[in-house]
Amino acid sequence: MSAPNKKKILNDPVYGFITIPTELLFDLVEHPYFQRLRRIKQLGLSEYVYPGALHTRFHHALGAMHLMGQAMSTLQSKGHSISSDECEAAQIAILLHDIGHGPFSHVLECCLLEGVSHEQISLLLMHELNRQFNGALSLAIRMFDGTYERTFFHQLISSQLDMDRMDYLNRDGYYTGVAEGAIGAERIIKMLDLVGDQLVVEAKGILSVENFLNARRLMYWQVYLHKTSICAESMLIQVLRRARFLLQQAGTEAVFASASFRLFLQRSVTLTDFQTNRSYLDAFTRLDDFDVWACIKEWALHPDFVLSTLCQMLLDRKLFKIMLSTEPFAGELLNELENQLHRLGLPADMLSYFLVEGQATNAAYLPSEDRISIKLKNGNVIDIADASDLSNIQVLTNIVRRYYVCWAKDLKAVPQSVN
Amino acid sequence: MSAPNKKKILNDPVYGFITIPTELLFDLVEHPYFQRLRRIKQLGLSEYVYPGALHTRFHHALGAMHLMGQAMSTLQSKGHSISSDECEAAQIAILLHDIGHGPFSHVLECCLLEGVSHEQISLLLMHELNRQFNGALSLAIRMFDGTYERTFFHQLISSQLDMDRMDYLNRDGYYTGVAEGAIGAERIIKMLDLVGDQLVVEAKGILSVENFLNARRLMYWQVYLHKTSICAESMLIQVLRRARFLLQQAGTEAVFASASFRLFLQRSVTLTDFQTNRSYLDAFTRLDDFDVWACIKEWALHPDFVLSTLCQMLLDRKLFKIMLSTEPFAGELLNELENQLHRLGLPADMLSYFLVEGQATNAAYLPSEDRISIKLKNGNVIDIADASDLSNIQVLTNIVRRYYVCWAKDLKAVPQSVN
Amino acid sequence: MSAPNKKKILNDPVYGFITIPTELLFDLVEHPYFQRLRRIKQLGLSEYVYPGALHTRFHHALGAMHLMGQAMSTLQSKGHSISSDECEAAQIAILLHDIGHGPFSHVLECCLLEGVSHEQISLLLMHELNRQFNGALSLAIRMFDGTYERTFFHQLISSQLDMDRMDYLNRDGYYTGVAEGAIGAERIIKMLDLVGDQLVVEAKGILSVENFLNARRLMYWQVYLHKTSICAESMLIQVLRRARFLLQQAGTEAVFASASFRLFLQRSVTLTDFQTNRSYLDAFTRLDDFDVWACIKEWALHPDFVLSTLCQMLLDRKLFKIMLSTEPFAGELLNELENQLHRLGLPADMLSYFLVEGQATNAAYLPSEDRISIKLKNGNVIDIADASDLSNIQVLTNIVRRYYVCWAKDLKAVPQSVN
Amino acid sequence: MSAPNKKKILNDPVYGFITIPTELLFDLVEHPYFQRLRRIKQLGLSEYVYPGALHTRFHHALGAMHLMGQAMSTLQSKGHSISSDECEAAQIAILLHDIGHGPFSHVLECCLLEGVSHEQISLLLMHELNRQFNGALSLAIRMFDGTYERTFFHQLISSQLDMDRMDYLNRDGYYTGVAEGAIGAERIIKMLDLVGDQLVVEAKGILSVENFLNARRLMYWQVYLHKTSICAESMLIQVLRRARFLLQQAGTEAVFASASFRLFLQRSVTLTDFQTNRSYLDAFTRLDDFDVWACIKEWALHPDFVLSTLCQMLLDRKLFKIMLSTEPFAGELLNELENQLHRLGLPADMLSYFLVEGQATNAAYLPSEDRISIKLKNGNVIDIADASDLSNIQVLTNIVRRYYVCWAKDLKAVPQSVN
Repeated sequence: MSAPNKKKILNDPVYGFITIPTELLFDLVEHPYFQRLRRIKQLGLSEYVYPGALHTRFHHALGAMHLMGQAMSTLQSKGHSISSDECEAAQIAILLHDIGHGPFSHVLECCLLEGVSHEQISLLLMHELNRQFNGALSLAIRMFDGTYERTFFHQLISSQLDMDRMDYLNRDGYYTGVAEGAIGAERIIKMLDLVGDQLVVEAKGILSVENFLNARRLMYWQVYLHKTSICAESMLIQVLRRARFLLQQAGTEAVFASASFRLFLQRSVTLTDFQTNRSYLDAFTRLDDFDVWACIKEWALHPDFVLSTLCQMLLDRKLFKIMLSTEPFAGELLNELENQLHRLGLPADMLSYFLVEGQATNAAYLPSEDRISIKLKNGNVIDIADASDLSNIQVLTNIVRRYYVCWAKDLKAVPQSVN
Repeated sequence: MSAPNKKKILNDPVYGFITIPTELLFDLVEHPYFQRLRRIKQLGLSEYVYPGALHTRFHHALGAMHLMGQAMSTLQSKGHSISSDECEAAQIAILLHDIGHGPFSHVLECCLLEGVSHEQISLLLMHELNRQFNGALSLAIRMFDGTYERTFFHQLISSQLDMDRMDYLNRDGYYTGVAEGAIGAERIIKMLDLVGDQLVVEAKGILSVENFLNARRLMYWQVYLHKTSICAESMLIQVLRRARFLLQQAGTEAVFASASFRLFLQRSVTLTDFQTNRSYLDAFTRLDDFDVWACIKEWALHPDFVLSTLCQMLLDRKLFKIMLSTEPFAGELLNELENQLHRLGLPADMLSYFLVEGQATNAAYLPSEDRISIKLKNGNVIDIADASDLSNIQVLTNIVRRYYVCWAKDLKAVPQSVN
Repeated sequence: MSAPNKKKILNDPVYGFITIPTELLFDLVEHPYFQRLRRIKQLGLSEYVYPGALHTRFHHALGAMHLMGQAMSTLQSKGHSISSDECEAAQIAILLHDIGHGPFSHVLECCLLEGVSHEQISLLLMHELNRQFNGALSLAIRMFDGTYERTFFHQLISSQLDMDRMDYLNRDGYYTGVAEGAIGAERIIKMLDLVGDQLVVEAKGILSVENFLNARRLMYWQVYLHKTSICAESMLIQVLRRARFLLQQAGTEAVFASASFRLFLQRSVTLTDFQTNRSYLDAFTRLDDFDVWACIKEWALHPDFVLSTLCQMLLDRKLFKIMLSTEPFAGELLNELENQLHRLGLPADMLSYFLVEGQATNAAYLPSEDRISIKLKNGNVIDIADASDLSNIQVLTNIVRRYYVCWAKDLKAVPQSVN
Repeated sequence: MSAPNKKKILNDPVYGFITIPTELLFDLVEHPYFQRLRRIKQLGLSEYVYPGALHTRFHHALGAMHLMGQAMSTLQSKGHSISSDECEAAQIAILLHDIGHGPFSHVLECCLLEGVSHEQISLLLMHELNRQFNGALSLAIRMFDGTYERTFFHQLISSQLDMDRMDYLNRDGYYTGVAEGAIGAERIIKMLDLVGDQLVVEAKGILSVENFLNARRLMYWQVYLHKTSICAESMLIQVLRRARFLLQQAGTEAVFASASFRLFLQRSVTLTDFQTNRSYLDAFTRLDDFDVWACIKEWALHPDFVLSTLCQMLLDRKLFKIMLSTEPFAGELLNELENQLHRLGLPADMLSYFLVEGQATNAAYLPSEDRISIKLKNGNVIDIADASDLSNIQVLTNIVRRYYVCWAKDLKAVPQSVN
């Protein structure tokens, strides 16, 4: 039984107030799995560019839940029958859609996990919560994994126009100060409708959808793929790579780490690991930004030159130089940069930690397949690319790729011979 | 020598853009001492009430520097002679005014330091920076410590209407979503003037000043002294108290801590310590929120019941119950709460960690002495209390006191006999 | 019968969207009586101080209706039974509460009507609409005139915390740019509750109420009673006074006016006139700002020196000088001003049009009697003055009086002898 | 000589404050020609869609002057030499760029003037002011008409990225509540630079420029060319057409109008008229929205069925039905609509007033020729179409055309035989 005087209203600068509408949602918000999201920033290292971008996945998930409530009301007000169980399930599903995120999610997924996406972990955690809550999340899970027959619920959770994107563009815009990220979510949501079980946008909402697509495009160049963030993230990846190297070379005591974090540092964890060994999921639910930052701070004092140098640079925001290009970099350029680092005295076996090549794409922000459907006044449903006079709808949803190379411009006290 | 292409413009959601006006200011912003402020939240544990309140002292200090620039322009445009050296010094002084803050400043000052205020540490760090920058901060330091003869500079740095308060009310309002905190700093700054070397506000700015005082009052009750923040802070104080107890009982390895943090956990550090042993100041400049959070996370797994329970409660946001009163609590009530905890099986020697009495006041937010002066159209200068028809000017600047008691409502797995 | 595709959503910069919830409300919005409010500015001549303050009573009334809808939802969500008929009636009543306003309401009421308040005219028009809508407004009228037994509805329409004030402070703040007028109406509304049939505010809303009272106080000094508005309004009063004088002297063709306006210019109209002669109410429903402005423009070319001078001054924003005081002005001062005007050549019989004394109070913004009730956590209901530690609650609701004198500083082409 | 205590700061909700920087600018703002702009709404009849869109050309012109001041500071801070005379002249030119607008500018230009653009009238009025101010506006005029050799000044006044558009998108977005109109003008202005005398945008501002172009496109469909505005405007054009018809049929007393307005109603006025007969320009400087509204109100009572019906419909916001299409309408459709009106009893000679065909384009919002130039990091200057990966730059600046037909759906009391 739930206590009657639960606090159910939260302040939110983006929407004014967020009301937690049911006891079950309240209990999920209170659960340690969800509270962990307080300790995971939405935008990772973007704070190095936008000092205000410190908001968490906790806040974002609540915001998305709030917008889902608005979407439910809108659809009901247009005569579509949605039960209160469905409403709650949709809000649960969006509340928990990101619960499988770890700290610095992109970094983590690319270094410490082996082909395990945060969606898969979200699903594992939702099943675990469903067990703890005696099956109360079953409908939400079906909406989340796309097996519920009323498909529009899944679209509201994960598609071009889902409540996830609606909230994060607004929220990231608010906290970074990039005002162009604001998307008038309220307006788009008011234009949502159903044709059968398909989510559509009323024709008069086309301009708002175009604006939303444009805002998204602007945000990924201006924020999500900002070169300084890419650079800091590359450095963090090198840090973790070096820590794992040291662990594997010199044994488990070679570098400091919390027990949970150590589990993931020691070797890449697979989906099978998560499914067969409960301790991985347990450890994951204790993992957050602080595990990583505690290591960075501790490792800055580590005797290993590579590890300590990179960590101290991150702490002091002495970042690598970075160059971006639409083409892969010529071998000559990379050779020249290698030579530069050589001249600074850097041994060859350390080179790969201080000179990093890579690619950045907006793929993470663009759902691959699904389309935005527009409902015309005559009732016909067409693709937005056919409804708009704007030839760039396609461009707005293209995957774009940038090549980058980043490197340490100067290094102090390079050891004569290390290792 | 400074690189020519330094990035000198920052996005700030509160003011749009913040420009760093000079090379010296830029170099100070880049300095590790200042970068540390990126890792210290402005509002400590207020995020437990306002999930968006994650902004840092770094961002606040930049904002205050920005407002100081506006104040300088305003005063110059009214015909007062202010040199570019003075402008820069005033901006340096406000930029660094909070550099002596540690993590969870109030908690730290009350537990781990012995009568050392953050202002004193700020001054120590400014002197150290002055040494590193070959005396370039001398004028800023005189403005900061009040020895510069043109006293209005000190007023702009620390007084009822200083740029510190101007920024933090706006900024805290923005990030918490408590819109009433917004104070129209721009308007007040436009109304600033000088009479001799005294800072005054033009008569037509009275209402804005009243509004500012009111916003400040509202913010301290609604945010700074919110009962849930007080409660979480009390719990953190107990955590640190217990950790120190264990350290002193069982030796330096008894509890995990970073080297810097351990120095302050072992025993209360005094101003003399700082002045006579350089290692204290060095350690302080490496201390930030992450040191504390890393411990809380690690200590949640500690065998000591008190330490692990309190830390896990903080992590899961299972906070104490709290009661507030304008009067001290009756002994009967406290006895009854003690009995409750007893009935949960809590040994007597652990009681003080789970039942905490205390007081909260707005004193930290109210400069004690200085007055706000209003310049009438006839040129006379009078106190705002005489200029306003609002009898509550006094009230708005009163120190108010609340008594609180907070306690654990239920405890799991209390040990039969500990210690 | 209502058409099905009525446009029911309006853009509103203050709240995002305003939805017109029922057919009846929609038909009332469409009615010419209500559409007339599009042509009546909310703040009269305040645009001379705040150039953005051009919003209309039409927009305000819709905003108040929107807030009333939120208040209904809040009270229902707290378990109070409110029927859909009551909801609609409450929204009708607030939608129409200002329908009896004429152009430049204060000026009109003081010059052209004889003791007829806009509330009385609102009631007359609501009865007329009720006739046209076959009694559908009966409940709304009872709520408006205070005869409905559930008294909280009347409180929401007209009291210290009514939806009227909630909207106009927000809206006037938005359009003037006086940010301090924003009052967090959403927050206060969420704190509303009922005890019996009395409207109360939950204890945790005290600070928001204080902030609201303070914002109101600030707005009346900064906007509603701004000296420049007082001055422009005084000039407009002289214009109307002179026009009536000329009409009465020289007959109905002496000055240009629309037929409707002429009716009110010719002689002061009383409540009995309205009740006994239908043509007054008809004329009133055709009266708006344009009638007045058309005259000002036409009269600027009138051969009468007083009328044309005052009108041209208003058009060109060449306003009188004005002095304010908390005390009545000394006879000496007034004599001196009279002499000044004399020296400019102004004949004695024109003096009273160019030298005006008067008083301004905030009385219009302060409901006289009713109190704001706070519901404590223990269920007790007390007055806010007893619930707040702020001694100035009284001050915030005091009636304050300012004496003013305003006069033409220079006059061109004063006629040698007029009349 | 100017009085010393001129009020030089205005509240502006869009930018906070607008400072009028020089005495000459202040005197121009005070001039009756400029004060007239207080009485001309920026968006004409858009208030029928967006009830808050009541802001004036006065406010817009001040806002554009404010942004010009920011542009001057930015360019100076990048090392370009701009004298204080040039600064003032640029601000004068932008302040006065719209001074030749009449009421409901588009309607007026298309009905009452014969091929005279508002820019031509602006220039005439600037020359007249230059005469009155003894040549102080000469440089401003050269900037405005493009004869000043430093061409970037003209670009700032009139080009794709001029301060005019910067302000009106922001301001129209603010007052309509169409948040997508906000364009981060501050950001774009900070990115402005010069190469030689050509205005360019730094490469890192590309996204902001794209966003600006997109916002502009959105605003013209959502606001400037909103079908309801087109419809209301069409009706107003019919009103004026009918009034002129009656005037020409029945003589000068046939319809009410102010003397100034009558001059333009009687016959189409040409540029030669303005140049050769001073009374046209004089009359124009007395013309504003109130002249038109006064007529609409008066004409609603006129015995002519067409005139009174259209005017009353406008007053009561009973608008025509409207259909839009990307193709011209088929003759069949138009015939069918004619028949409908016939069946309502409308005589053939009135048909053209109640059934209107036309086209709407965004041409007014798109400067035809000039390009936006981007300055790459390597110093090269290229066209934005080549700098952006967005293929739709072209689309965003295309002229798009919509055909519309609008008609009265029902008519009351059609006279059996009129005329």
